[in-house]
Amino acid sequence: MSATDPGAVLRKEDLHRSLADPVLDTMNFLNEVTHRYPGAISFAPGRPYDGFFETEDVFRHLRRYLDHLEENGASPADVRSALFQYGPTAGTIRELIADWLRRDESVDVPPESIVVTVGCQEAMFLAVRALVPGPDDVLLASSPCYVGITGAARLLDVELVAVDEGEQGFRCADLEAAILAERARGRRPRAFYVIPDHSNPSGSTMPLETRRELLDLAARQDIILLEDSPYRLVSPGEQLPTLKSLDRARRVVQLGSLSKTLFPGARVGYAIADQPVVDAAGRRTGLLADELAKIKSMITVNTSAVGQAVVAGMILAAGGRLSELNAGPAAYYGDAMRVTLEQLAAAFPREEREALGVRWNEPTGGFFLALTVPFRADNEALVRSAEEFGVIWTPMSYFYPQGGGDRALRLSVSYLTHAGIADGIGRLAAFVRAAAR
Amino acid sequence: MSATDPGAVLRKEDLHRSLADPVLDTMNFLNEVTHRYPGAISFAPGRPYDGFFETEDVFRHLRRYLDHLEENGASPADVRSALFQYGPTAGTIRELIADWLRRDESVDVPPESIVVTVGCQEAMFLAVRALVPGPDDVLLASSPCYVGITGAARLLDVELVAVDEGEQGFRCADLEAAILAERARGRRPRAFYVIPDHSNPSGSTMPLETRRELLDLAARQDIILLEDSPYRLVSPGEQLPTLKSLDRARRVVQLGSLSKTLFPGARVGYAIADQPVVDAAGRRTGLLADELAKIKSMITVNTSAVGQAVVAGMILAAGGRLSELNAGPAAYYGDAMRVTLEQLAAAFPREEREALGVRWNEPTGGFFLALTVPFRADNEALVRSAEEFGVIWTPMSYFYPQGGGDRALRLSVSYLTHAGIADGIGRLAAFVRAAAR
Repeated sequence: MSATDPGAVLRKEDLHRSLADPVLDTMNFLNEVTHRYPGAISFAPGRPYDGFFETEDVFRHLRRYLDHLEENGASPADVRSALFQYGPTAGTIRELIADWLRRDESVDVPPESIVVTVGCQEAMFLAVRALVPGPDDVLLASSPCYVGITGAARLLDVELVAVDEGEQGFRCADLEAAILAERARGRRPRAFYVIPDHSNPSGSTMPLETRRELLDLAARQDIILLEDSPYRLVSPGEQLPTLKSLDRARRVVQLGSLSKTLFPGARVGYAIADQPVVDAAGRRTGLLADELAKIKSMITVNTSAVGQAVVAGMILAAGGRLSELNAGPAAYYGDAMRVTLEQLAAAFPREEREALGVRWNEPTGGFFLALTVPFRADNEALVRSAEEFGVIWTPMSYFYPQGGGDRALRLSVSYLTHAGIADGIGRLAAFVRAAAR
Repeated sequence: MSATDPGAVLRKEDLHRSLADPVLDTMNFLNEVTHRYPGAISFAPGRPYDGFFETEDVFRHLRRYLDHLEENGASPADVRSALFQYGPTAGTIRELIADWLRRDESVDVPPESIVVTVGCQEAMFLAVRALVPGPDDVLLASSPCYVGITGAARLLDVELVAVDEGEQGFRCADLEAAILAERARGRRPRAFYVIPDHSNPSGSTMPLETRRELLDLAARQDIILLEDSPYRLVSPGEQLPTLKSLDRARRVVQLGSLSKTLFPGARVGYAIADQPVVDAAGRRTGLLADELAKIKSMITVNTSAVGQAVVAGMILAAGGRLSELNAGPAAYYGDAMRVTLEQLAAAFPREEREALGVRWNEPTGGFFLALTVPFRADNEALVRSAEEFGVIWTPMSYFYPQGGGDRALRLSVSYLTHAGIADGIGRLAAFVRAAAR
């Protein structure tokens, strides 16, 4: 380098193409808007309500897990190692997770089929990398879909094919048609990603009958189902069985989040991958979980031992019943959804609503609902909404990997107080009326 | 699925090709051997010595960081959020890391140029993804090289070109020749990965003059240097300046580990990426760190808040001087290396050593040294060594991405006690003599 070398400057076009993709930028833009208008009420973040957390609990849960290790025969040196050292790539708390899944979720899998991950996002990334390996392979996803799966696919140069939900929700026939269409153009459909319960972003829930049909379809078409279900246990009332609990043929890889049922700051999730893997000679080499762990060893090595310990302490404290632990939060979020729907109904009386062309769905749980509006709900509209009306939401178009959703927005109800929701829906109604003009 | 459907079975050949690659399997094999022969003395794991850890410290460090937040004006609700909620993707402890780097490492970068990662491995993964984007781009690496970089490249279908160290260590001329050769065959060399200090696996250290030459070369050939340096502060005596501290032209992305200087179980590392990024019109859009954070948001979302908090508490406890904190460990590891070298010299008297064709290098620090032997040090030899002689090591061939190292093995000296080292080298000498026959 000469003394006058101005130094390295990188051109965006020389970086990975996902970085020029709107998906990776959308959340950035949303954060920027949130930062720029701190006084605005935000229906954007899909985060849990803070009121359920208690700082001192972290110390208590950590202690409880260390005591548990000792009660189970670990020496003080073992306990120290478990906390401070590199741990097994697949995780140290697989038994506790398997036990909880058996008690609470009717999912009976051996601990060896579980990989503990850095949140559900890493589980997604591992599954997409393992299962959708080459340029001729495609990943399918129910659309609108969570940006996490779109982003993982983009980073891995994996083609993602959207199967649109439509007004009536996901239909197996549409998925089967998409699979056949992909095969017809020489592609191999490998896996289908879906959030069956109170989906992010649409809030829709897949009926039981559709779940059974989907499992049949997966077997018939030889694809793997990637089931993501972070909102089940924080939703009120009886929940439908997960795909994994109905899965008799190991068609489902479940991508597990504990961010809503325990807490996001631990960054602990998991994948259930109990599919046997065979080599070219047909000999069994292990489970898909083993392959996911190998990939994980080259991404994050292992999940934070401290994070795992706190999570384990919480599972122990709940006696392995996260459903009971979440009875309070589930009721709270159910109320928040109810209040939001009531406020929307009050803000847009039926006649005005119909005249304007405003409508929304009525999810039975989860954090999100979808609002259809009579104008383009894009970044420009969002900035105007934040600046002039003090209210933030997420453009639904962010969640359509192949375009769509231009006149809809996502509202998250999880993070606000009831008073905040009432105030925010008032502001939103004012914005919608103004924008509709 | 019909009632007789035997269920999904995945063929390994249908999974991502990295899973059929020896690199991802090697560490697996090593773990398996370690597990199968629990009585063997292992020179394999590159983990820190357990004796520096104290279980109760985790509680103390966590408390210290929370107190620090409060002292700096955070309300109890802010502290709770910092611990329990989703955090900023680039991390919450960037200021503390920047402050430590300034005090201890003569690296003066703004906190905005730092991304906190899930260990150094994630930093590697992010950098390779961002900087080596397409099929015509190549990553170069000093070889033998750490399997983490080889694995990250394999997972991302990135071509890795090895620049062999040779007996005299890395030479800039070899790198430049490799760059020119790649260009000649139509490839774009984008980045060069190296561990300048006490390398894993070879233990070699790059002289100061070579560091300066390498920075000049990077500017001349317009490549980025990926500097990984986990062993500096845990090595005895004065250390050479890092590439990053000599970098006046932002040619270096430093991939930072805290696993050896603090502890592995936190899974907290970082990347320093202070390179400006410009769009097609030449307008500055931000720093490379911002782009790495975008990628991270689709892999792990953010680094465990609990892990970051404990690490931050340790940095605070050390007054931002990790070098001072590590004075004890550095002396300990220096002694371990000295004892290992003494034991080797005693086990292989010069005449026998020369007759056998056994030799080793004498690293001035770090965790590893390389031993050349007169036979193939492969998996088969390793199993025999473990089974018949009760000693485990790592085949050096694992670390050659394009072949090589068949008659060498890596010894790690960090994890054992001095007595363990003496016993282990005795066993190793017996194995080497037997295998040489």
